Amino acid sequence: MNDPWKNSRPGGPGGEGRPRAPVKPRPPSGDEAVRPASASKNELRLYGFNAVQAIFAQRPQAIRKLYLADYRIPQLQPLLAWCVKHRVGYRVVEETDLSKLAASAHHEGVVAEVLKAEPATLVDWLRDLPAGPTLAIWLDGVGNPHNFGAILRSAAHFGAKAILQPQHSPLALSGAAARVAEGGTEHVPLVRMGDQTGAIAQLHQAGFRLAATVVRGGTDLFATALPERLIYVMGAEGEGMDTQLAAACDLRLSIPGTGAVESLNVAAATAVLLAQWRLHRR
Amino acid sequence: MNDPWKNSRPGGPGGEGRPRAPVKPRPPSGDEAVRPASASKNELRLYGFNAVQAIFAQRPQAIRKLYLADYRIPQLQPLLAWCVKHRVGYRVVEETDLSKLAASAHHEGVVAEVLKAEPATLVDWLRDLPAGPTLAIWLDGVGNPHNFGAILRSAAHFGAKAILQPQHSPLALSGAAARVAEGGTEHVPLVRMGDQTGAIAQLHQAGFRLAATVVRGGTDLFATALPERLIYVMGAEGEGMDTQLAAACDLRLSIPGTGAVESLNVAAATAVLLAQWRLHRR
Repeated sequence: MNDPWKNSRPGGPGGEGRPRAPVKPRPPSGDEAVRPASASKNELRLYGFNAVQAIFAQRPQAIRKLYLADYRIPQLQPLLAWCVKHRVGYRVVEETDLSKLAASAHHEGVVAEVLKAEPATLVDWLRDLPAGPTLAIWLDGVGNPHNFGAILRSAAHFGAKAILQPQHSPLALSGAAARVAEGGTEHVPLVRMGDQTGAIAQLHQAGFRLAATVVRGGTDLFATALPERLIYVMGAEGEGMDTQLAAACDLRLSIPGTGAVESLNVAAATAVLLAQWRLHRR
Repeated sequence: MNDPWKNSRPGGPGGEGRPRAPVKPRPPSGDEAVRPASASKNELRLYGFNAVQAIFAQRPQAIRKLYLADYRIPQLQPLLAWCVKHRVGYRVVEETDLSKLAASAHHEGVVAEVLKAEPATLVDWLRDLPAGPTLAIWLDGVGNPHNFGAILRSAAHFGAKAILQPQHSPLALSGAAARVAEGGTEHVPLVRMGDQTGAIAQLHQAGFRLAATVVRGGTDLFATALPERLIYVMGAEGEGMDTQLAAACDLRLSIPGTGAVESLNVAAATAVLLAQWRLHRR
């Protein structure tokens, strides 16, 4: 099989290292341009216009390859110029190829293969954290990429400083979650915790209080003074919060409602909780 | 082709009209038990445990047919007894058949064919509405069923009294939206409006104020006194709020944030807005 990138390095022979403007990428040259296999273990296929723009703004050196539809060329000029300068291959392909690459129709005209960001450790994250009001989210078991992406987007919007993940959480950033996050992934680091008891002790040591969010029986979110340094602990969809973990938290909060439905969607609940903390900080 | 329902009416010959308890449905009998075609125009295939339980609680007479996995039999006993009594056919089928019927793997072990509820007209909805604090949502163009379902669920949780839809909105309740709504569809009526100018006048006449939700340039949601009778007007994903409609509203609200992402997901934003109104009513 041909190397699909052989003919697609727009830096061209010599690779002068200077962007041409406007960049005129080569026309698509059919199916052999597209590798249908998924990206390697250390790479992630990001898609969605805002998701790709966000990684370009925050971590451009993580971009390994880029595929785009021709209608995106004008909007992606700065990124394409960057690719030329740094000899990152890109290729204009058909929409159907983008759907295959993204394994989704929601590619919004652009797919990027990027190096995954390694999750920070809790120790490192805490060491670099400034004093003062700080909010973060502990995701105990959220598995749906749409929910995970929406949580990342809300976390970025409301200024949460991390998504904390349990030691053995299978949750990993996917292209689908990154697309729904609309760039939020590049603003809210993922932090991998060690064992639960140790993690709670470290967070307490750093002045945080932990608030478990429970469907029933918690104190009323709207009537509770929220701590300045706060971790919202969110349970899994369906099963909800692990009762042992909830018991180990400093607060147990519920979002009062009519009772017509059992609970809010986990991403909707997270947005309400984040907004409420921000309201308290005004 | 055999009538798949021929042998599956658990009322049996004679149809005594009394539920047997526990109901012992016939074992699955292979592929011919499942009609892969979609439900008719007036019917909707609902799936998801809470979605089906909610319609059973609120509108059982709308249920025309029921398919379930055997592991759901114990939990669905009251519904199965109701089906026996009212001669509604049900059938225990394989998970793969449920996936085909629902056109989704998220069937949670149960699929129901139900009569669609006709949207109310704005005149009828307003006529039956009590005085006093009332909240509703105007969905201008939300198209994603996951977002629509999450909005319905939040609306039910926070006690919003309707989802108002523009005259020519293509938005219709789908099985996917109903599943995500977790039963919220049965608590929040859909209301179809007439032409926009007339609808706004009718809502004003009924004492409502309309609040457009805009990504930038609105007054700060957290610093605004919210009217007792309020319609939140939500724009479409991506495009956002129609500027003419926003200009016709009484308030323009924004949810303040860091600016790291352009906006919140529309379902997350709706949850925050609903929660904020409820907070004002305490």
